[in-house]
Amino acid sequence: MSEKILHLQELATMVKGEIVGDQDLMISGFGPLETAQPGQISFLAKAAAKDMIMDSQASAFLVPMDITESSKTIIRVQNPYLAAAIIQNYLLQKPFVAEGIHTSAVLGSGGSISEELSIGACAVIGDGVTLGDRVAIGPGVVIGNDAIIGNDCVIKANVSIDQGCEIGNRVIIHSGTVIGSDGYGYATDNEGVHIKRPQLGKVKIGDDVEIGANCCIDRATFGVTWIKSGTKIDNLVQVAHNVIIGENSLIVAQVGLAGSTTLGRNVIFGGQSGASGHLSVGDGTMVAGMAAVHGDQPAGSVLAGIPAIPAKKWFKAAILFGKLPEIIKDLKKLKKEVAQLTRKDGSE
Amino acid sequence: MSEKILHLQELATMVKGEIVGDQDLMISGFGPLETAQPGQISFLAKAAAKDMIMDSQASAFLVPMDITESSKTIIRVQNPYLAAAIIQNYLLQKPFVAEGIHTSAVLGSGGSISEELSIGACAVIGDGVTLGDRVAIGPGVVIGNDAIIGNDCVIKANVSIDQGCEIGNRVIIHSGTVIGSDGYGYATDNEGVHIKRPQLGKVKIGDDVEIGANCCIDRATFGVTWIKSGTKIDNLVQVAHNVIIGENSLIVAQVGLAGSTTLGRNVIFGGQSGASGHLSVGDGTMVAGMAAVHGDQPAGSVLAGIPAIPAKKWFKAAILFGKLPEIIKDLKKLKKEVAQLTRKDGSE
Amino acid sequence: MSEKILHLQELATMVKGEIVGDQDLMISGFGPLETAQPGQISFLAKAAAKDMIMDSQASAFLVPMDITESSKTIIRVQNPYLAAAIIQNYLLQKPFVAEGIHTSAVLGSGGSISEELSIGACAVIGDGVTLGDRVAIGPGVVIGNDAIIGNDCVIKANVSIDQGCEIGNRVIIHSGTVIGSDGYGYATDNEGVHIKRPQLGKVKIGDDVEIGANCCIDRATFGVTWIKSGTKIDNLVQVAHNVIIGENSLIVAQVGLAGSTTLGRNVIFGGQSGASGHLSVGDGTMVAGMAAVHGDQPAGSVLAGIPAIPAKKWFKAAILFGKLPEIIKDLKKLKKEVAQLTRKDGSE
Repeated sequence: MSEKILHLQELATMVKGEIVGDQDLMISGFGPLETAQPGQISFLAKAAAKDMIMDSQASAFLVPMDITESSKTIIRVQNPYLAAAIIQNYLLQKPFVAEGIHTSAVLGSGGSISEELSIGACAVIGDGVTLGDRVAIGPGVVIGNDAIIGNDCVIKANVSIDQGCEIGNRVIIHSGTVIGSDGYGYATDNEGVHIKRPQLGKVKIGDDVEIGANCCIDRATFGVTWIKSGTKIDNLVQVAHNVIIGENSLIVAQVGLAGSTTLGRNVIFGGQSGASGHLSVGDGTMVAGMAAVHGDQPAGSVLAGIPAIPAKKWFKAAILFGKLPEIIKDLKKLKKEVAQLTRKDGSE
Repeated sequence: MSEKILHLQELATMVKGEIVGDQDLMISGFGPLETAQPGQISFLAKAAAKDMIMDSQASAFLVPMDITESSKTIIRVQNPYLAAAIIQNYLLQKPFVAEGIHTSAVLGSGGSISEELSIGACAVIGDGVTLGDRVAIGPGVVIGNDAIIGNDCVIKANVSIDQGCEIGNRVIIHSGTVIGSDGYGYATDNEGVHIKRPQLGKVKIGDDVEIGANCCIDRATFGVTWIKSGTKIDNLVQVAHNVIIGENSLIVAQVGLAGSTTLGRNVIFGGQSGASGHLSVGDGTMVAGMAAVHGDQPAGSVLAGIPAIPAKKWFKAAILFGKLPEIIKDLKKLKKEVAQLTRKDGSE
Repeated sequence: MSEKILHLQELATMVKGEIVGDQDLMISGFGPLETAQPGQISFLAKAAAKDMIMDSQASAFLVPMDITESSKTIIRVQNPYLAAAIIQNYLLQKPFVAEGIHTSAVLGSGGSISEELSIGACAVIGDGVTLGDRVAIGPGVVIGNDAIIGNDCVIKANVSIDQGCEIGNRVIIHSGTVIGSDGYGYATDNEGVHIKRPQLGKVKIGDDVEIGANCCIDRATFGVTWIKSGTKIDNLVQVAHNVIIGENSLIVAQVGLAGSTTLGRNVIFGGQSGASGHLSVGDGTMVAGMAAVHGDQPAGSVLAGIPAIPAKKWFKAAILFGKLPEIIKDLKKLKKEVAQLTRKDGSE
């Protein structure tokens, strides 16, 4: 990873930070506190861990605003974690190198494929496919007919994108993920036989979406399953047919979203949580790991539990769950005592 | 999707429906109420939403029997949802087009491969494999030695079917799914080292089964892991070694079935639910999403919760879960009051 | 499966067992009680099922020590299940047959690749890759640049191992699994836009690890995500960035381990359970299926529930969950009775 060399002041400007210390440092890379080398910049997420920068070999540190001075060179910023990500991305940025189309890759006919791209070995691109500029298609990727992939996308090894799906710009899709598999829809006859409902829609993925490894995003029955721009999906996530996920949402690993459910923007679903179908989940809703959302949820909901209820309420209840045997014991004792009192009372 | 053009009366006969209105309409396709075009047929699932057909541009509508008349042409049927699926499949039906074996596909020796099939680019077929008529093998599919695949199957991109597994007729397997991976079986020695138990069985899949994307169906330790005919499995489902799933069952996304568990026919497991190993789950059992089935279940069970209990009982309890803090508060107060009463009572 | 033919005494020595019966038997294979053939050896896990060996056609039986005699030939051992695995593996053992590199496989440059290995059709190996002796790479596998794979590994079809990851010796990875996908890490700005944190670490997998199908093991942000030697992972498991799993642990299907969590050795996570991030879970901890571990756990913890609590406590509470409606009814009645008693008491 060859990184750029930059003047500290440039970096400070980039993250709207204020330098305290040596303004003239040259920075050649980024590293975590423990392993950063001299010449590199690091970051401290919380002021409480202030002493850790004393043990680090980094030459400069992104720190929260409540640290005002240090014997080391610091850049004070509102959000050191964010500033670190911005600087690190900048330092690692390198021009796209088009490796062209591997001789073992198989291309269909009639598409529109940028000249500045990379298509890996044994990738299979269908007919009528559009691939934008600076796209990197990994080895073993299969893209179905008439799919559209925007600019600057990275599609990792063995991803399957089925026919007609549309991927925006700057989208990253990790290995093994399947985009555009059929939705799970059947009509059942009197004998209990399930008749497949044709799945004729597609999947549409906005800009700057990242999708983890081995996810499944089903195509819509009609219309679209839609992951809107800026949303980040972790590994092994199931997105059923006709689901819509709003902008900048975070869907953590192994979440399952059932058919036709709509999430607003900046929604967070914790790991292994789920939502049943045909729900509307408002903007900014946060769902705890392993929670099960049933019923529509207003914007800003904070939920936990199966079924999901307001998280505060759930947490209070959940820590008392183990007391059920004691509760029942207490109840029995009370019943006996009250019965005795009532008897005496009645006999007076 | 070029569709057939059919006389309305033909369609009504196909779904055992009764036309009220223009018997002579020609129908050229199917669409949902909102987007259907003139000349197309649509459907209304429930009589309560009757007014929706007034706003639709479709020329005819499949409706439930309790709608007896309409200013639009209707076909009255017992189950409009089912009738719609039947008609839609019929209209979309097209003859299989054998595309042959792609030059980049790799075929083993000694198998029996139909002449009327399609094998996609970079697919790899082992030795001794049987592929039936009108089979469509997607790009990147890997089929191990001696596997058998029946007629009219669709195996989508990047599926892996390991050696010796048997797939019936009209089976659909979506991208990324793995059939015949080793079961998870170890014997542990005194030092806590796990010795792999050889997994020598296979996977057998009946007719008309559909398996979603990125599922795992493990081979049996000995004998078979068996998905019986008509069963439909959603995405990311785990079926462990020696599991047997009866006919026409529905296994929704992210379900996990542990080793040697047997499900009856027409069983439903909701999303993210699971069953522990060596269970027997009777015919027609319904398991709610995220439920965990432990212990054998008689036919017709309706279950929810962790561990799963009768769903009615669980739902009643679950909505009260958040009241635990209140319950404990009430109990404390009662205990104090009763203690006071008992004291007074004793002092009399 | 051609198996070796062995003298019973050799097998008994191998598993430190004592023969009661015909010491001179020749054994040609292993089978389960129900299907074993004459000449084969079988095993009985528990003495209670002793009668089952009478109905079996096997010629000899591994049995627990508490069986001291039988009309059939037996080998008494401490752990028949373990002894069976050891003998079965021995009987099935066969020399590695190097099939070489398939002509359709694509190899990068500058690596170090053993001459005694098999690389399947359409496999794609990057630049600078190290592949050890007797490695079997399945069809469609993609291995990124600079990855290292030790000796005697089996990498099944369509696995993706991304650049720089290190795999030990005797590792088995089942189809569709992804090693080295990016960790799920973002910094969020004031507008709710998520900035990707570069994921610069790698995945390191020890010796004798087995990883099931369609798993995801994310690379570390910095440093390593590390699966230590002897650990066995089932299908569809999610291991997030910087997780460390100690030696000889068992991670059952669909488990999710969040970022930076560290498990000790011989830890067991049951199916569909999970752990949140940045936890330390001590050696020998056992987590029940569908449990959610929050907070650090000392060695030897036995946990269940959401959130996970000591399993004994949880099981006692869980079987009472359905009684919540009754509890609330009882409480109401008691409150009324006590109020009445208190009123009377006050009026005296």
